[in-house]
Amino acid sequence: MNSAIEELKEKGRAAKAASRRLAYLPTEVKNTTLHNISDDLLIKQDEILAANEIDYKEAEASGMSAVMLDRLMLNPSRLESMAEDVKAVAALPDPVGEMFDMRTLPNGLQIGRKRVPLGVIGAIYESRPNVTIDISVLCLKSGNAIILRGGREAIHSNSVLAKMVQDASRKAGMPDGAVQFIENTDRALVTHMLKMSDTIDLVIPRGGAELIRFVKENAAMPVVAGGIGVCHTYVDRSADIDKAVAIAYNAKVQRPTVCNALDTLLVHADVAERCLPLVAVEWDKAGVEMHCDKRALAILKRNPSLKLVPATDDDWGKEFLSLVAAVKVVNSLEEALGHIECYGSGHSEAIITEEYEAAMRFLNEVDAACVYVNASTRFTDGSQFGLGTEVGISTQKFHARGPLGLKELTSYKWVIFGSGQVRP
Amino acid sequence: MNSAIEELKEKGRAAKAASRRLAYLPTEVKNTTLHNISDDLLIKQDEILAANEIDYKEAEASGMSAVMLDRLMLNPSRLESMAEDVKAVAALPDPVGEMFDMRTLPNGLQIGRKRVPLGVIGAIYESRPNVTIDISVLCLKSGNAIILRGGREAIHSNSVLAKMVQDASRKAGMPDGAVQFIENTDRALVTHMLKMSDTIDLVIPRGGAELIRFVKENAAMPVVAGGIGVCHTYVDRSADIDKAVAIAYNAKVQRPTVCNALDTLLVHADVAERCLPLVAVEWDKAGVEMHCDKRALAILKRNPSLKLVPATDDDWGKEFLSLVAAVKVVNSLEEALGHIECYGSGHSEAIITEEYEAAMRFLNEVDAACVYVNASTRFTDGSQFGLGTEVGISTQKFHARGPLGLKELTSYKWVIFGSGQVRP
Repeated sequence: MNSAIEELKEKGRAAKAASRRLAYLPTEVKNTTLHNISDDLLIKQDEILAANEIDYKEAEASGMSAVMLDRLMLNPSRLESMAEDVKAVAALPDPVGEMFDMRTLPNGLQIGRKRVPLGVIGAIYESRPNVTIDISVLCLKSGNAIILRGGREAIHSNSVLAKMVQDASRKAGMPDGAVQFIENTDRALVTHMLKMSDTIDLVIPRGGAELIRFVKENAAMPVVAGGIGVCHTYVDRSADIDKAVAIAYNAKVQRPTVCNALDTLLVHADVAERCLPLVAVEWDKAGVEMHCDKRALAILKRNPSLKLVPATDDDWGKEFLSLVAAVKVVNSLEEALGHIECYGSGHSEAIITEEYEAAMRFLNEVDAACVYVNASTRFTDGSQFGLGTEVGISTQKFHARGPLGLKELTSYKWVIFGSGQVRP
Repeated sequence: MNSAIEELKEKGRAAKAASRRLAYLPTEVKNTTLHNISDDLLIKQDEILAANEIDYKEAEASGMSAVMLDRLMLNPSRLESMAEDVKAVAALPDPVGEMFDMRTLPNGLQIGRKRVPLGVIGAIYESRPNVTIDISVLCLKSGNAIILRGGREAIHSNSVLAKMVQDASRKAGMPDGAVQFIENTDRALVTHMLKMSDTIDLVIPRGGAELIRFVKENAAMPVVAGGIGVCHTYVDRSADIDKAVAIAYNAKVQRPTVCNALDTLLVHADVAERCLPLVAVEWDKAGVEMHCDKRALAILKRNPSLKLVPATDDDWGKEFLSLVAAVKVVNSLEEALGHIECYGSGHSEAIITEEYEAAMRFLNEVDAACVYVNASTRFTDGSQFGLGTEVGISTQKFHARGPLGLKELTSYKWVIFGSGQVRP
């Protein structure tokens, strides 16, 4: 263990040293690295999928849940979409060096802010091997060094992907040490990593609630955390019911295992009779189990084919990550806002309405990373938002909120151009 | 003690409740509050100065250092300048509600970010009573509730000022509870305050290194820290010597007790013979004691009237906060950059040069909150930077860096305007 800790510390020092050069590396070198990675994802497809198959079979044999297996699995179409995302990031403008808020003060000082990388990013993640690529690509393009620590379940996939990123970086002329990968999946090493505030500037945990809690409680450096999404869709009394049905269906069914999927449907009493049966029929076709409050149950139980369960207190504020939805009838927009304030996780919340005032109140008063009017919460995603991809989705307000792309991995320095000014 | 803790928690809950309404309070109410405060600073001048005199006399009797006494002291001209700063903040645009990065995606979704307050700010500070005003004003204008916990040394001044802010807020129509003041100066209460992550969103420590370290190590919520300034001014071989002398003098002498004052002067060997004696004569008139490396000492000891001390290793990277400066001769820009990387605190660093390449390298490579060319580091200040005033000066890269004004007390939410979009 001692030698593993020493090796970890050495990786930290190497990443820190690399980060100094990365801070003013030409955009060309960073983009070439990204194009190399994008190409290699397709060129080395067989090698990547073979490694992933080992992980997948081991995980399946160990009884991993379907949700986690879905997260772990790579296939040609997922690799292709990863390669596309990498190209999208390469095509985005380099955030580093951007000068903003520039102005001239009355004394002639020219003052502004210049965007700079954060330094070294530590990524601690679980079973999704695509995180290795997403985080590497965004960190490198934003001039940050990275220390990758993926989960044991994906160790074969991650090893191949991380080596690919390292080779692609070296070939493009990145400084040595910019990409560090920790092969040792001993949990104790994470604890040591979280104390390395002298070499790691920011830690990003990606995974379940337990991992995120552990990282937040133990990290000596800043943490950007999120990913826990208890997402509500509220159907207002003025809603267009067709839109409501289509959006509720999409938000729950299109990919139920992820954080931006619908957990609770709130429906205004005035439209519950019309709306709920239509949503329920569509959900039922997809196999959704509905945990209903009393009033929703009274409406829906007329259709005996539906999978209905009386809701308990535990259903409110629960992230289901599966084909289960909680359903509640509310008397007003205020009641919906109150429910979301009480049970939301600050991730993604939607209102379906045709009324201007209701839309504005929802946008202004809901305190969440992403607030939608008449759209599916499934759009909360760096790629969908036009950020190329994301290193995570922050549900905290500090530093950055929602999908974290390039800009969110930077800081700034104030630059002041004088001609001999002194303070009077 | 238990009742004090309960009272503290109740203040936290009250601030949190107020923060929900503060988040979308009309700008008018916030500006009226600020104008009330600005007026009251002058109207209630006698009351404020009387309270401050009690603090000052007690502090003086207890043997407080001159540096701390200077920080504690209020007088009519300081009150006037505080009132001016408050008006300057009132005149700044309201950061809350600003929509930015707005664009329309190919699927017709209109997406952007909307600036929102952080929530509740906890301020933990020491002997400067003006912090009570600066932090209150910036927090309220940016829609944040505040919990003020000033030092025991300034308790009389702070009580009067905090009550003034509370009255001014109430009169303007702020929600009850927006401004909380902790009268109890028991240190143990700070420890409890730092655990209140459910009601406090951000803690800002203002004070000495020991306080800042304590807050960083014990806070369960994010912290923006800084204020420790080990500031270098580097005189390049191409420097205009007149500018160098004027800037070195200003940076060291104009107000030596603050964090943006010069600590170490680095001079290129090519100009040391010309520059150093001129700086030293001016410094000497102001009573500056110079801690010189061997080469600087060899040059300066020809003038027997100077207060010279041979530098020891402890002098590099030391924040003097007094009329003491470390002086070192370097052989190159590289050596200066290396010295600053090793000993700087990431606060404010300056180069004096007439050479374009030297200026650009210094700006790009020095990793500090504020990097100057040909100007005094004394300008690092919210008021000087046009931010009205500041809640502190951050030397961390996360969230915000340098003087923290209104924008730095905000976060954003993503807002998405749809017309029925679902994710394919």
